[in-house]
Amino acid sequence: MSKPTIGFVGLGAMGFGMATHLVHEGYPVHGFDVFPASVERFQEAGGIPALSLRESAEGKSFYVCMVASAPQVQSVLFGDEGIVQYLPQNATLLLCSTVPASYAQSVAAELQSCGRGDILFIDSPVSGGAKRAADGTLSIMAGGSDEALESGRDLLQTMSAPSKLYLVPGGIGAGSNMKMVHQVLAAIHILGASEAMGLAAQLGLDARQTADKIISSDAWTWMHENRFPRMVEEDWNPGASALTIILKDAGIITSSARQHRFPTPLCTTAEQIYLSALLQGYGPKDDSAMVRQYFTTPIASVTASAEDQSTALQLVLDLMQGVNLVAAAEAVAFARYLKVDLAQFHELVSAAAGASRVFITKGLEMIKGHIGEEAPAGSQTVDEAIAKLEAVVQQARDLHCPLHLGNAALNVLFTARRAGLGAEGATSVIKVFGTE
Amino acid sequence: MSKPTIGFVGLGAMGFGMATHLVHEGYPVHGFDVFPASVERFQEAGGIPALSLRESAEGKSFYVCMVASAPQVQSVLFGDEGIVQYLPQNATLLLCSTVPASYAQSVAAELQSCGRGDILFIDSPVSGGAKRAADGTLSIMAGGSDEALESGRDLLQTMSAPSKLYLVPGGIGAGSNMKMVHQVLAAIHILGASEAMGLAAQLGLDARQTADKIISSDAWTWMHENRFPRMVEEDWNPGASALTIILKDAGIITSSARQHRFPTPLCTTAEQIYLSALLQGYGPKDDSAMVRQYFTTPIASVTASAEDQSTALQLVLDLMQGVNLVAAAEAVAFARYLKVDLAQFHELVSAAAGASRVFITKGLEMIKGHIGEEAPAGSQTVDEAIAKLEAVVQQARDLHCPLHLGNAALNVLFTARRAGLGAEGATSVIKVFGTE
Repeated sequence: MSKPTIGFVGLGAMGFGMATHLVHEGYPVHGFDVFPASVERFQEAGGIPALSLRESAEGKSFYVCMVASAPQVQSVLFGDEGIVQYLPQNATLLLCSTVPASYAQSVAAELQSCGRGDILFIDSPVSGGAKRAADGTLSIMAGGSDEALESGRDLLQTMSAPSKLYLVPGGIGAGSNMKMVHQVLAAIHILGASEAMGLAAQLGLDARQTADKIISSDAWTWMHENRFPRMVEEDWNPGASALTIILKDAGIITSSARQHRFPTPLCTTAEQIYLSALLQGYGPKDDSAMVRQYFTTPIASVTASAEDQSTALQLVLDLMQGVNLVAAAEAVAFARYLKVDLAQFHELVSAAAGASRVFITKGLEMIKGHIGEEAPAGSQTVDEAIAKLEAVVQQARDLHCPLHLGNAALNVLFTARRAGLGAEGATSVIKVFGTE
Repeated sequence: MSKPTIGFVGLGAMGFGMATHLVHEGYPVHGFDVFPASVERFQEAGGIPALSLRESAEGKSFYVCMVASAPQVQSVLFGDEGIVQYLPQNATLLLCSTVPASYAQSVAAELQSCGRGDILFIDSPVSGGAKRAADGTLSIMAGGSDEALESGRDLLQTMSAPSKLYLVPGGIGAGSNMKMVHQVLAAIHILGASEAMGLAAQLGLDARQTADKIISSDAWTWMHENRFPRMVEEDWNPGASALTIILKDAGIITSSARQHRFPTPLCTTAEQIYLSALLQGYGPKDDSAMVRQYFTTPIASVTASAEDQSTALQLVLDLMQGVNLVAAAEAVAFARYLKVDLAQFHELVSAAAGASRVFITKGLEMIKGHIGEEAPAGSQTVDEAIAKLEAVVQQARDLHCPLHLGNAALNVLFTARRAGLGAEGATSVIKVFGTE
């Protein structure tokens, strides 16, 4: 069976990988980008160049939008040369950009109001980075009408790993909400990777040895494992994932949290440090360059000088576990508040860029606790989590090393203790975020 | 009556002012400092140079220690040439350095254990800045035995304003605790001054006009009024108050808070941003240079370009009021937890460097609420405080302006709302810090 022709807009790091993967899978893909060089590069990779938005859309029954932000989506869809006026009847439109759920819902409404209610619209943000985009193994969170999801399913499945296409219940906006609560963890863990490696450097630990230990420990995060090679090699000009990208995603989270008046202390802390770095000119660099907010020279040049290497390493692991615990609580609490399907959320995150060992285990406890089961006997208490994290924070302070997330997480744990939760299981820190 | 001879160590910005003021008041003051240039300068100002610690102490029945930190105090008192071995019998020793209460208590214990229990020791940190030190109008928080306070009273009174000598109940450590909870406000308001003026610059507001409005409004803080002239003139090399000074004080607060496992989210946020600036080389500069963490060029060069000046100004005022509200809650809650005399705390702060209009009014409500009175009818609710602050935070985010304190304060207010306090008076935000 011949593959349908695809229109595609947004040939950046992610979009280029997605579009060329579709080409490799045999789809005729007409790609457009505002940068002509990106279109040329796409042509060299086997794609069909579209010289205008109109050309990318006319006669294309399937269309993928992978531009960077909601304002760009608005322009692509509804601007002067907006594709909505050119797409054929009953076309299937995949919005893969990361946008606020409320924006995705506004697109559905505007399609109706401009007489294009026939378009099968899918709210389908993606996660996984440029490499998985090019491999067609992304995680995709897709929401929409049953008819739209049925029509777009083959295309979505081609771009995602077999088990990583999540059909999210709740219609338009549900996919974006799922992506957003996933990004709570991503936004925290990206800074967390730099904070941990910056502290390791301040402690006089060898970067690569420390990273190896982290990766094989309960402190593991997907982001740390993914960012560390670029961090240690300072391979961040241009970055595989620019600071501006996670800053945009963090902004979607904190704007939405403010609309709901929901606290997101760790994600907000990360966002503010990203903004500080933006002010210093780090916007176009890889987000792993955030390590410079903690250590001002290359971490690769640190020679192992800590008197007690294993004690120093344990501090780094304790930092990450403390931060990852509160990050899991913040993400699960916000997801629960937004009525995101929590079982699907856990499954998705555990296999995606927001994953941490702590989320996989304690995040599940938080979710299960919510649905009535008890935390395992003998598990760590809030007070025990405090004891470990405060030792790291004090040590970092003595070294004059900032620990933005470590301190924010510790304050959340202290707030839990002040609310009388000190002797409860550490997962009870989620109660600081309110119930329901 | 002739004035007694005084020994004095620590002729830095504050100590030099204090020592020369005593000279002007007719005291023979023998001053020592590790920097010979400071001793020479003191001599030129009419002081008597001491060429060694020993010389500064021998035969001096009154001794003032104004070095910068607890480790320096330890060396001055108990080091190889420590003054304790040279002070005459029944000498009165004023420790005016800012140190942790637990350290002041350890000094008292060490005096006993080394056989110098005869020394009349007073734990008497000061506040007010270099100018008030030189004018003899400092705020002084003095704790100690009745006998010691009686002996040191004239000297303390000479260095302080008539109404600003606070004899703090609770003995050794009580003065330092009082200073510490005062510094919670100082540490937050110093960054708050830069955050407000940085946002004002980002909004396109004239710096001097904005500062005038702030000073005459309910958003006023003593720190903003004091720091603004140096901030706008970039008079910060060297500063009147180096970043390292407030960073040291913030460290005393957060270390103590960790010992008590008490949350200090705003003070910790400020401390972490101070540490970030330290990493960038700002340590010796005036702390008003923190404005550069928010705006990268001189704020004096901003020309009023905001389309709606009064709306933009209101955002700046709302930011400060929101931050000052949560700062007041954090400080009062921590003071209450430490069993600091709250009426004295309020009186002292209101007339010292930690003052804000919000603390004077709403801080008092928090304290009074604690002792059983009701908040005034018709006062702002937590939800109303949230509405104002979230509008500022969103605007700053749109401008890519970091708002470290604004965001941290908003998350505390959100946490209060999630705890069911949204409809209560805004002062109820203090309940997030626990009861008692």
